[in-house]
Amino acid sequence: MAKLSSRWSGGLPTAAAMALASFGSFHVGGRAVPLADLPVRHCRFTNAGTATTIDTNGLHWVEAMYAQYFVPQQRLTTEPLLLWHGGALTGACWESTPDGREGWLPFFVRQGWITLCCDAVERGRAGFPPVPQVFQEPPLHQPMNWAFERHRIGTGPGSWHPEPSQCQPIAGTRFPVAAYAQLAMQSVARWTQSDDAILRGYLALLEEAGPSHVLAHSQACQFAFQAAEARPDLVRSLVLVEPSGVGSAEGSLALRHIPLLLVWGDGTLTHTRWQTLRQTVDNYLVPLRQAGGHIDLLDLPALGVQGNSHLMMMDDNSSDIAGRIHAWLQSQLSGPQQRS
Amino acid sequence: MAKLSSRWSGGLPTAAAMALASFGSFHVGGRAVPLADLPVRHCRFTNAGTATTIDTNGLHWVEAMYAQYFVPQQRLTTEPLLLWHGGALTGACWESTPDGREGWLPFFVRQGWITLCCDAVERGRAGFPPVPQVFQEPPLHQPMNWAFERHRIGTGPGSWHPEPSQCQPIAGTRFPVAAYAQLAMQSVARWTQSDDAILRGYLALLEEAGPSHVLAHSQACQFAFQAAEARPDLVRSLVLVEPSGVGSAEGSLALRHIPLLLVWGDGTLTHTRWQTLRQTVDNYLVPLRQAGGHIDLLDLPALGVQGNSHLMMMDDNSSDIAGRIHAWLQSQLSGPQQRS
Repeated sequence: MAKLSSRWSGGLPTAAAMALASFGSFHVGGRAVPLADLPVRHCRFTNAGTATTIDTNGLHWVEAMYAQYFVPQQRLTTEPLLLWHGGALTGACWESTPDGREGWLPFFVRQGWITLCCDAVERGRAGFPPVPQVFQEPPLHQPMNWAFERHRIGTGPGSWHPEPSQCQPIAGTRFPVAAYAQLAMQSVARWTQSDDAILRGYLALLEEAGPSHVLAHSQACQFAFQAAEARPDLVRSLVLVEPSGVGSAEGSLALRHIPLLLVWGDGTLTHTRWQTLRQTVDNYLVPLRQAGGHIDLLDLPALGVQGNSHLMMMDDNSSDIAGRIHAWLQSQLSGPQQRS
Repeated sequence: MAKLSSRWSGGLPTAAAMALASFGSFHVGGRAVPLADLPVRHCRFTNAGTATTIDTNGLHWVEAMYAQYFVPQQRLTTEPLLLWHGGALTGACWESTPDGREGWLPFFVRQGWITLCCDAVERGRAGFPPVPQVFQEPPLHQPMNWAFERHRIGTGPGSWHPEPSQCQPIAGTRFPVAAYAQLAMQSVARWTQSDDAILRGYLALLEEAGPSHVLAHSQACQFAFQAAEARPDLVRSLVLVEPSGVGSAEGSLALRHIPLLLVWGDGTLTHTRWQTLRQTVDNYLVPLRQAGGHIDLLDLPALGVQGNSHLMMMDDNSSDIAGRIHAWLQSQLSGPQQRS
């Protein structure tokens, strides 16, 4: 791979500058928990320090989430677009592709969206509580082969190899296989019992942000469905990129005033694991469909776009897909709040 | 506190737009470790899922670090400015102040610096390995009162209270006490045995980024000193905001061609803990000083600027301090690499 510094010192995109009014970040949600039975440790904070008694008992803030916001100077609408990442990932997945192209975050900012790039509860800059009083089970960190073999980049179990040239990618994959290491490096540990806390975090975010457009990927789609069920008034539209989970039984009816866009890459109708997940999503949406809900489908292979993995925001045609999503989102905009 | 959405939907800074060529992120450094004795678990990934056998044994990438880069359209120099955060924090500390003003990251981007906002190994979006094979001791998560009582915001032990109005801040503090919760929320867990891995991460970053200006805070100053000792050719200048640690004995001599700026807030000469830390830094720099090293001092109270806490990038005069640092950095720029 080229030196990372080539990303800014040469080979810069020749695209026009992106004019921002501002950018920044905040944490939102969570709760204070009093912890009284943490072990008192006698250790050094740093190599050079002297051993000291460290007692961290006290009131801890846990289960907040993190959002970084970008405000373009020319805004398409005052209602923000929220990017919610999938499992084992953080908001970093939207920033750059593994091979260093602009990701969906800068793409949508360039289109004029006030964009909030989020880290879910217990992921990334949201922080995590390393105490069993909050999440009883320890977190899981996934081995390097998982994303390759499970997310329709490789041909299946055993298809990943530490040496890129010896990997067995699906023929015609659009994932930048030579740069796969960047994906493995950005994978983070996850807890398996944090669903409720993650959902509470997203609801707290929506309450602070006000009515928003939500673009969710994979694991986050489950939270997007659930959040929209709980607060349909706060979700203007919902883009669901390869959902790996859904909301509650019959719950989709609550979404009847929210336009939905489902996005599927290649192989989701034939791949063992993904055809099941896709069926689960279709089943969940039956009540909504029957009630005349607004459900659009961006089925890439049906449109002749082959080779997209589960991580299509990193694939070599990521900007093309983002453009299609942007066009759909834009078509949902209406009313007096537009063009600030 | 005002609704967070007021940060973008109203009350936007009236400053001129900031024109970016691009922004993005990457991970750098770390190593692959084969793990073979992790317990195989039988659990559900999500509330709605079915229990499954989860075996995460295999090759894991650990100890990478994360950097988000911003490239202004008009650049002061091609050599980037790296922001290295302190302990229990992430790069989020540079983005916005707790009360929602622009932080030092957007400030330096506005001045034309290619700015890299980093998360150190095991912090934030860098991810962490939740296995004793990498870091033997469990991480520490600090209670809410620590930053308030230890970082010269409050008057000392017992001065923090969950109800802001009942806190006992130092008279005249410039920290936005009413928004302290945002600081508590952004505090993350840290390991106590990760110094070597963090330093390796920063060195890998410097090797990829090329010669850089480094602005470090608190815990990160130790790594900045150590990285500069190891690779003085890759450090153009060093800004050290309230260092809580130093490099190796006699090591400062290696910095004799690197201009240094030491920045101290209020009370570091009288506060029990901070006067010791400041003395440690002065002692470390004795060989460098004797060798005629370039050491500048921004001692805020000596300049009549009172009330700055250890977290001066969040204080109410944060932009003024950033401006002074920028002026110093700019005065270090020279040679043909300027004005790209």
